[in-house]
Amino acid sequence: MTQNIYDDPGFFEAYSQLRRSVEGLDGAPEWPALRALVPDLTGRRVVDLGSGYGWFCRWARQHGAAHVLGLDVSERMLQRARSATSDDAIAYARMDLERLDLPEAAFDFAYSSLALHYIENLSGLLAAVHRALVPGGRLVFSVEHPIYTAPSRPGWRVDADGRRTWPIDGYLAEGPRTTNWLAEGVVKQHRTIGATLNALLRAGFAIAHVEEWGPTDAQIVARPELAEERERPMFLLVAAQR
Amino acid sequence: MTQNIYDDPGFFEAYSQLRRSVEGLDGAPEWPALRALVPDLTGRRVVDLGSGYGWFCRWARQHGAAHVLGLDVSERMLQRARSATSDDAIAYARMDLERLDLPEAAFDFAYSSLALHYIENLSGLLAAVHRALVPGGRLVFSVEHPIYTAPSRPGWRVDADGRRTWPIDGYLAEGPRTTNWLAEGVVKQHRTIGATLNALLRAGFAIAHVEEWGPTDAQIVARPELAEERERPMFLLVAAQR
Repeated sequence: MTQNIYDDPGFFEAYSQLRRSVEGLDGAPEWPALRALVPDLTGRRVVDLGSGYGWFCRWARQHGAAHVLGLDVSERMLQRARSATSDDAIAYARMDLERLDLPEAAFDFAYSSLALHYIENLSGLLAAVHRALVPGGRLVFSVEHPIYTAPSRPGWRVDADGRRTWPIDGYLAEGPRTTNWLAEGVVKQHRTIGATLNALLRAGFAIAHVEEWGPTDAQIVARPELAEERERPMFLLVAAQR
Repeated sequence: MTQNIYDDPGFFEAYSQLRRSVEGLDGAPEWPALRALVPDLTGRRVVDLGSGYGWFCRWARQHGAAHVLGLDVSERMLQRARSATSDDAIAYARMDLERLDLPEAAFDFAYSSLALHYIENLSGLLAAVHRALVPGGRLVFSVEHPIYTAPSRPGWRVDADGRRTWPIDGYLAEGPRTTNWLAEGVVKQHRTIGATLNALLRAGFAIAHVEEWGPTDAQIVARPELAEERERPMFLLVAAQR
């Protein structure tokens, strides 16, 4: 089973104070770009892989989804998500995404925000999602960008002349990366963009859109600290079609 | 018109001494990976965008292509390519790839090695290639990887403890990059992987394979200096299907 860092009390406490945890979807700067990839959900059956606090599940229902299934490995997350809604058309279930098990052709749309970079067996997960979608169904997800996950010592460096860079090494060495983000020893899986896209293709998906996310000018005006995200992307957004 | 650096005498002289210029396809470490994306060429009509010395055009004929058209903007390159063959089924023509003009459905396969990162109007070129291919026809190309082209000051940095990194900035700032590679003031177009793939999708192509190239173990044994290519990829290889 994948490391379940979200049930670590210290991590959960720190995570719950992030802007995206407090403000929900609108607190995540990449959300407008991700949202643009989401099809019309009216009457659709939706599954959210790594549903967290359930922000997207509730949004999907507000935007016409007939039924939403939120899956997460973290009991704490699921408790928070369940306590935030009384909508009978939203169901939450505990699931280890390394062993994703879903009924065949049961969903029109699959969504995942910043969860798949925790998964070792991405090919297995994508095969399960492909099987669970109807033909023409769409998968939209975000993951941490490999430029962000690659380095042996991730972080900014400022040169004597003020030039700010993100030094990369190990980009083609795919596999686990242990970082101290919110808690010590958080394990993420580093994989190249090519590896992610080829895994989708092998699972039978067609690539529909690939975006290395960066902030808009308006976002930088509102939150100047986002400007550095243009120097090296932190997120990769992908849309694929069954 | 795109900068035609290959007709700069100093550049051409330096370029002609590169291993890939002297040894041809086998002198290019990424060739085995690129070759794996090339379909069976028996009886096929092939166009090579940026054909250089004509190594690939001759290889394609040796591998059964019925006819090969090599296009290049450089007169020097075309002269060298023409002087290297007397095969009537290989034709060379001078063309600015910014204004690629090809007959409709005239080719089964389009190939381009390390040429498209010179092109400003990639969307226009891809539309022309799509139109020139038969349905089911394939496009395979390599370009410099955006991690390689992005930095304002490209180059390796070695930390006090020996860690070797490639500092990135400006990754999401697409557009021209001027470097001093073989000659001063060589202009290349930096674009993200997402931008390249979305341009293919908009032109009507399906993505078939995306590879951020790195050397094999055997290649590193034979040429130890290639090991650094695993730290940050230099080439992006793409296969797309009309």
